[in-house]
Amino acid sequence: MAPKSIRVCLSPALLPFYPLDDTIAVVIDIFRATSSICYGLANGAKAIIPVAEVEACLAYRGNGHLLAAERDGEVVTGFDFGNSPFSYTADKVGGKTVVLTTTNGTRAIQWSAGATAVVAGSFLNISALSRWLQSQNHHVLMVCAGWKNQFSLEDTVFAGALANSLNTGGIELDDAAHAAESLYLEAKDNLKAYLSKASHSKRMQRLNIDADISFCLQQDTVSVIPIMNGHELVRLAETT
Amino acid sequence: MAPKSIRVCLSPALLPFYPLDDTIAVVIDIFRATSSICYGLANGAKAIIPVAEVEACLAYRGNGHLLAAERDGEVVTGFDFGNSPFSYTADKVGGKTVVLTTTNGTRAIQWSAGATAVVAGSFLNISALSRWLQSQNHHVLMVCAGWKNQFSLEDTVFAGALANSLNTGGIELDDAAHAAESLYLEAKDNLKAYLSKASHSKRMQRLNIDADISFCLQQDTVSVIPIMNGHELVRLAETT
Repeated sequence: MAPKSIRVCLSPALLPFYPLDDTIAVVIDIFRATSSICYGLANGAKAIIPVAEVEACLAYRGNGHLLAAERDGEVVTGFDFGNSPFSYTADKVGGKTVVLTTTNGTRAIQWSAGATAVVAGSFLNISALSRWLQSQNHHVLMVCAGWKNQFSLEDTVFAGALANSLNTGGIELDDAAHAAESLYLEAKDNLKAYLSKASHSKRMQRLNIDADISFCLQQDTVSVIPIMNGHELVRLAETT
Repeated sequence: MAPKSIRVCLSPALLPFYPLDDTIAVVIDIFRATSSICYGLANGAKAIIPVAEVEACLAYRGNGHLLAAERDGEVVTGFDFGNSPFSYTADKVGGKTVVLTTTNGTRAIQWSAGATAVVAGSFLNISALSRWLQSQNHHVLMVCAGWKNQFSLEDTVFAGALANSLNTGGIELDDAAHAAESLYLEAKDNLKAYLSKASHSKRMQRLNIDADISFCLQQDTVSVIPIMNGHELVRLAETT
């Protein structure tokens, strides 16, 4: 089997222009929501509940869940943590449910809800995700979380990496998938250097979270595929 | 002088996320609206009035104007012509005002109306446009017309070509401008071959308008800069 087509939606604001039926949506927020989601589920988090707004996250207070909120790259005051992958280690999230809201990524997940399945992609799980997508016979729509509805370089380069691994010939790519693949092929020999011109890399450097950048660019460190099951992201195998 | 920043808006649907103050909007619809607009004004058209809807175009009937309407790559039934550049020769448009509506380009022009100035860019006038933009001290926002609000490869590659010519160091580029420039640098040695994978190239090949593709990829065949003056596009010099 193989995907029926590969498309890339470069901003959540463009989602209304893409049909979602018979489609697996791969949500991508490399710096850092979907990287941390992959890492947290690999480290034994029971589930991650993505919510769009800080207030919706606060409503879970008292349920025994960990509450995580990031806005503009920083932890929101009063929350346990934000979206740094270093907050998603086994000792912190093992056996716990995390309720997470971020500037871009969690909204992209919620807005993709009409798809046949919604999964989270990152460099950390790219090969496992690619193998699974190749075993499915649906359209693939990669949804780049971007930055406040604008295009983001790192999300698009990842979309290109995934498109490249899926593009084994005979599959239709849309223009954005072709462009993303071109960008990935240019960037792949030194991802961090290429992405250093990205505005979000600069933002994270200003916030002294350069270590997060390097962490999120590691490839194939985990094999989980986070998938939406009701309102939670869980490990794929657990839904079957 | 130099532009204050260079940004690329990859779809008209993303325009609400970009501030337009102190900004020159460069509208880009390579296949074929802005290419034909440049060619028509270079060939002596008095003005070109972009309108978003076919009905708005029809409302000009009887004013002595030429009416042009394209949807989905074809001339709308009942109209003088569409957006093929071969309809914008001196013998056809010289001294005339053309009222034009197209699937993507004319809407992008109208939606950019809040900018300090709105100009039309194409490979045909790229050097003249670049020189003029370099003489201005505003932000530059390139607005890719795309295809039905989705990303289009040819518009983005042109945005990259223009960004590359303006990017003389010290100017801030946003992520989309960096990506567009990367794509242009990959494509530039054989634009037509690179763009053959674009969905709109395939659409035009199906419609037997391959000659239009080659025409629109010619560089520096004209020196006019179409600029919005009220509700019309005219040659830049005529507004000063």
